[in-house]
Amino acid sequence: MLKDNVVLIGNKPVMNYVLAVVTQFSNGSEEVIVKARGKAISRAVDTTEIALSRFLQNISKKSIVTGTDKIETEDGFTNVSSIEITLKRDT
Amino acid sequence: MLKDNVVLIGNKPVMNYVLAVVTQFSNGSEEVIVKARGKAISRAVDTTEIALSRFLQNISKKSIVTGTDKIETEDGFTNVSSIEITLKRDT
Repeated sequence: MLKDNVVLIGNKPVMNYVLAVVTQFSNGSEEVIVKARGKAISRAVDTTEIALSRFLQNISKKSIVTGTDKIETEDGFTNVSSIEITLKRDT
Repeated sequence: MLKDNVVLIGNKPVMNYVLAVVTQFSNGSEEVIVKARGKAISRAVDTTEIALSRFLQNISKKSIVTGTDKIETEDGFTNVSSIEITLKRDT
């Protein structure tokens, strides 16, 4: 199960995920991790850019990590790129 | 004009860009910057992941920076997310 402060980016409109990130910080989270795989990676970047520029104050990007995940599909295992963007409240 | 060691990701198949990155390092570059905007961001991550895992030795990700670019379209200015992934030869 995902931890509370993880926002997993899927195929919904980007503002859904922006709202999820903003809500986490409003609820007092010190850190929110935005995760995505494959084509959703662009939407993860959009999510953090929009959240930071339009909605959040005193929150910064702490780290951006990309990687490769092995996932199982109907046709066997395949590699998919992933991204984890960590946002953190400024201290 | 783009500097020699910048690979700008567009809509071509990902292996075209992987080849461009690998070629840069084969030609002696110490550092290659992979840049993309909008939906091509996912392909930029794919490019670096494939280049690093399958083709390049002793090269690492030095930095990953995301941002927002203002671009002019037919309908006026709009914001688009961007990414810059810097790959560097290990010393």
